[in-house]
Amino acid sequence: MDPNSCSNIEAETKEMDARSLSASHQHSQYLHKVGIPPKQNLLREFIARVKETLFADDPLRPFKDQPRSRKLVLGIEAIFPIFEWGRSYNWRKFRGDLIAGLTIASLCIPQDIGYARLANLAPQYGLYSSFVPPLIYAFMGSSRDIAIGPVAVVSLLLGSMLSNEIDPNQNEAEYLRLAFTATFFAGITQVTLGFLRLGFLIDFLSHAAIIGFMAGAAITIALQQLKGLLGIQKFTKKTDIISVMRSVWGSVHHGWNWQTILIGVSFLSFLLLTKYIGKKNKKFFWVPAIAPLISVILSTFFVYITHAEKKGVQIVKNIEKGINPSSVNQIYFTGDYLLKGLKIGVVAGMIALTEAVAIGRTFASMKDYQLDGNKEMVALGAMNVVGSLASCYVATGSFSRSAVNFMSGCETAVSNIIMSCVVFLTLEFLTPLFKYTPNAILAAIIISAVVGLIDVKAAILVWKIDKFDFVACLGAFLGVVFASVEIGLLIAVIISFAKILLQVTRPRTAILGKVPRTNVYRNILQYPEATKVPGVLIVRVDSAIYFSNSNYVKERILRWLMDEEEKVKAACQPTIHFLIVEMSPVTDIDTSGIHALEELHRSLEKKNIQLILANPGPMVMDKLEASKFANLIGDDKIFLTVADAVSSCSPKRVENV
Amino acid sequence: MDPNSCSNIEAETKEMDARSLSASHQHSQYLHKVGIPPKQNLLREFIARVKETLFADDPLRPFKDQPRSRKLVLGIEAIFPIFEWGRSYNWRKFRGDLIAGLTIASLCIPQDIGYARLANLAPQYGLYSSFVPPLIYAFMGSSRDIAIGPVAVVSLLLGSMLSNEIDPNQNEAEYLRLAFTATFFAGITQVTLGFLRLGFLIDFLSHAAIIGFMAGAAITIALQQLKGLLGIQKFTKKTDIISVMRSVWGSVHHGWNWQTILIGVSFLSFLLLTKYIGKKNKKFFWVPAIAPLISVILSTFFVYITHAEKKGVQIVKNIEKGINPSSVNQIYFTGDYLLKGLKIGVVAGMIALTEAVAIGRTFASMKDYQLDGNKEMVALGAMNVVGSLASCYVATGSFSRSAVNFMSGCETAVSNIIMSCVVFLTLEFLTPLFKYTPNAILAAIIISAVVGLIDVKAAILVWKIDKFDFVACLGAFLGVVFASVEIGLLIAVIISFAKILLQVTRPRTAILGKVPRTNVYRNILQYPEATKVPGVLIVRVDSAIYFSNSNYVKERILRWLMDEEEKVKAACQPTIHFLIVEMSPVTDIDTSGIHALEELHRSLEKKNIQLILANPGPMVMDKLEASKFANLIGDDKIFLTVADAVSSCSPKRVENV
Repeated sequence: MDPNSCSNIEAETKEMDARSLSASHQHSQYLHKVGIPPKQNLLREFIARVKETLFADDPLRPFKDQPRSRKLVLGIEAIFPIFEWGRSYNWRKFRGDLIAGLTIASLCIPQDIGYARLANLAPQYGLYSSFVPPLIYAFMGSSRDIAIGPVAVVSLLLGSMLSNEIDPNQNEAEYLRLAFTATFFAGITQVTLGFLRLGFLIDFLSHAAIIGFMAGAAITIALQQLKGLLGIQKFTKKTDIISVMRSVWGSVHHGWNWQTILIGVSFLSFLLLTKYIGKKNKKFFWVPAIAPLISVILSTFFVYITHAEKKGVQIVKNIEKGINPSSVNQIYFTGDYLLKGLKIGVVAGMIALTEAVAIGRTFASMKDYQLDGNKEMVALGAMNVVGSLASCYVATGSFSRSAVNFMSGCETAVSNIIMSCVVFLTLEFLTPLFKYTPNAILAAIIISAVVGLIDVKAAILVWKIDKFDFVACLGAFLGVVFASVEIGLLIAVIISFAKILLQVTRPRTAILGKVPRTNVYRNILQYPEATKVPGVLIVRVDSAIYFSNSNYVKERILRWLMDEEEKVKAACQPTIHFLIVEMSPVTDIDTSGIHALEELHRSLEKKNIQLILANPGPMVMDKLEASKFANLIGDDKIFLTVADAVSSCSPKRVENV
Repeated sequence: MDPNSCSNIEAETKEMDARSLSASHQHSQYLHKVGIPPKQNLLREFIARVKETLFADDPLRPFKDQPRSRKLVLGIEAIFPIFEWGRSYNWRKFRGDLIAGLTIASLCIPQDIGYARLANLAPQYGLYSSFVPPLIYAFMGSSRDIAIGPVAVVSLLLGSMLSNEIDPNQNEAEYLRLAFTATFFAGITQVTLGFLRLGFLIDFLSHAAIIGFMAGAAITIALQQLKGLLGIQKFTKKTDIISVMRSVWGSVHHGWNWQTILIGVSFLSFLLLTKYIGKKNKKFFWVPAIAPLISVILSTFFVYITHAEKKGVQIVKNIEKGINPSSVNQIYFTGDYLLKGLKIGVVAGMIALTEAVAIGRTFASMKDYQLDGNKEMVALGAMNVVGSLASCYVATGSFSRSAVNFMSGCETAVSNIIMSCVVFLTLEFLTPLFKYTPNAILAAIIISAVVGLIDVKAAILVWKIDKFDFVACLGAFLGVVFASVEIGLLIAVIISFAKILLQVTRPRTAILGKVPRTNVYRNILQYPEATKVPGVLIVRVDSAIYFSNSNYVKERILRWLMDEEEKVKAACQPTIHFLIVEMSPVTDIDTSGIHALEELHRSLEKKNIQLILANPGPMVMDKLEASKFANLIGDDKIFLTVADAVSSCSPKRVENV
């Protein structure tokens, strides 16, 4: 033991004089007993609990006390919010939506073609997924700002997981069928989560882990684009940075194509420059939004007139003309691939939800409207189920396009309808124009799009606020970059869960002292001026006491006591006769917790120390009574405040011993 | 809205007069700011956190400030506690241990033979497992009361899981090898958990779930004994109650053997009677302890003289003579069965640990000595690893024998050594005597032993204390009885985890009011006399704010506000201008939590409501500062107590608006 700390404590304890003790004694006259809440009906209690868990947002509130016809209208409006906001739609709003819709359409068309390649699909499937799903979402979704379509991370994840099952080059048709199957089940997963009000499950992926995962995915996606950007023919199928860099360097001498590099790098510079301009001056937000389309037009025209495709510049070649064909018969409803599709669908569906809900919440909080997460999930799920029947792959809300949508002044989901119409026209009439579009341009567009997913500022903030969160962030990032998207995701989920488990198994405890000249007892580590009461040890337990931590809490309290007794002995101070457990933060207790308290009480009795409880909450009080523990230690040993409890510790006994 | 509740609240709020407000204003002079803890070194903080998680019990405390030679001695004593307590061993203690050892030996020999049958093993393996493991444990274990050997539940679990892989009747040798492999890995699991200080993992199985699981296992085991008790030849291999009862009834006419039933039922009655006597009068605790051996001797003698085995009474026939042969070469270290053995071993090892640690803790708290859970695990694991090399299957602490050990006055683990010696003598010399022991007696002994695992009182207490705990208890019970041990275990684990997740995703929140004539603010549901402050809403959040609940907390606070605003409007009271969040129970916050607070602040600003925080803890304060959120709402909006916060709410503004 450190002798210095001993004398400090001695000095502190001496400062804590009898006056303050008697003062607190005067103040409280034990007027108020700790309240025992009225016994609740079991069923009512159960229903209240279920309601709080699954219907925390009280979705049926507007239906209360309404006539039946009105309920029907409200019900339809709840499923199809368009009928609600549609009634107050006007020309002013349409103007905003039209401009926003045209802007995001110009951004989405080149992105879609590129993202489809990430998922190892032919380019038209990206466009298909920007046609049907946004239409469905416009009718069912409640976010006003989200822009629907394929997104980079989900495309990469889907491409990676699908090609683990089927080689897309050898079995193109089967690969496509599995993609639709996964999309179908992604939608089913989303609808189910929303309908069963289990939306909170996606909250289990922590914010920090998502930041790391997204940044890792962005780098992985950018690395994949080196193939297109450098014109490499033979490229690894793995996504980790080491395999990719080996593949890139290995093909320096005979694989790179200087014409492709020239086109790719110059347009990438142009795109990044426009991004920079848009960032510097918010007025020019539309510059980076239309830059991709301009790049496509310019580069396509350039290739067409120079016939660069004959000099090794790879081009898109052919995008099938016409709108989405039906894919109802393509989905695997039986066989081996059913289960595989289900597994991939569940994962992709959850990730897609995470992204869409995060975007929805961000913009909803900016414009200050409420978003029902569960209803959103039903809308997103329905759109993917329908999409999977119409040759679409998983669509969700895109970060970059939603931001552009927001800044272009969108008012409602009509901007999605406008975008959808533009995509329809493109599919019907314009696809042949993309024939000479060089792949390098698509790669450049994707790189410039995913750069925005790397949020260094947010990562720095995470580091500043919470070091353990940063570990989750870094773990997910490194997992994605050095192993694969799935491994990174797994790491993110495991670290997130480990944090929750750590939180519940090892709750914090604190020794409290009296803040001078008040009646308030606080953590002596936070308030060094707070003084301990001689002969009394006050411990606060900072968590509900459940089976997962009851043993730890008991042992930790006994260890605090042992430490304190040693200190007291070394300093020749009055021995400890009272242990006050401040229960304010103990929101609940279960059978194991009661058991631990009983064991604590028994251990203390042997040491001739009195256990006193301060301010147990309603649930805890209820259970202390039910288990007769309140009788065991004595009802008069439970107080409303720590101050009351301290003043009950017979001053004579405390001072004289 | 219910008009009654409205008027109640109105009345309450009117009662809450300006006087009490100004009183609280007088009292606090803002003397104390909320403390910001000193910035900690990152590495030190991290080490402290890891230490608290893994070394909560500070196992190296005695090693501190000791010379090296002393450290070595302490190290050896830490691994082999027998060298510590052995030095103060004396004849008085030995007398206690001798009596206890002989008593548990007489109880364990018939139980072992029966339990081996539960695990589908030949009877001698039960005896082997009561010879080597107790010896090892006596040297390494730190519990003074635990009695080591095979136990019913683990035997059943092992038997059930092993025979899912290999049919014990067709492939006896392979089955045995897999059993040793599983035992080996059970030991490795236990050592690993203990060595890595991960012992807290077994706390994740809640007390309530264990009660249900044990009761279910007891009934399943008892049902299995109907085969022996009724002399049925053809019996189902399933363990669920429906299959077993069908099997029992199906063999009424040609399967039951009345001589067996006569022997079995009469001795079962005798055993249950002695159990009752022992329970009624603690002085006769030894009666049920030696009754099984007496029954075995009597019934064996009876069968021997009447030659009942020729009339269909099944007998043990042959127990191999001699002590444990080596089984080093029998363990699967390669091939398919390696993984299967590993899986079974991990599950059996965890369950065995749960039982042993629970027993150890119970008796340690009765005799008031500390038990290091992690060290116990290393001892139990080492004993199983060595056991698996010497033809033993998984051994652990037994409820029934440990209780007898305790009551017979054992003093140290020497009683285990005595028992081990008796088992050794039995194996060497007495096994032929068991030839004519009828199986019905073993069945009766097992039934009377497992009856004690059904703890109806504890289940009723769980029901009284916590209804959700009871669901876990019932789920585990029904799962074991109607499906299988594994399913029951799975249900218990899932419900336990679901409870933890529920706890962290849906923390409680409460509206606070002022308890009359004090400065204390408490939950108005618990203290109906507490009154709200007009114009101010005080919400307490009862949990750390993490990614898993940050969104919920934010939305729940906004919903409280919405509810309150409606009530206030209906009652024509002053509108709300201040929202005080009482942060005392908020022990920690992460990036997502800060994010949620920022969104809350933004939403409130739009409604012209001031956000005020009361009493954030050290971790929270630290992060509020790091994230600049404290600056955002203003440092002067963070108070030490709710009372301070309330009195800061400009009374003019509150009263006049």
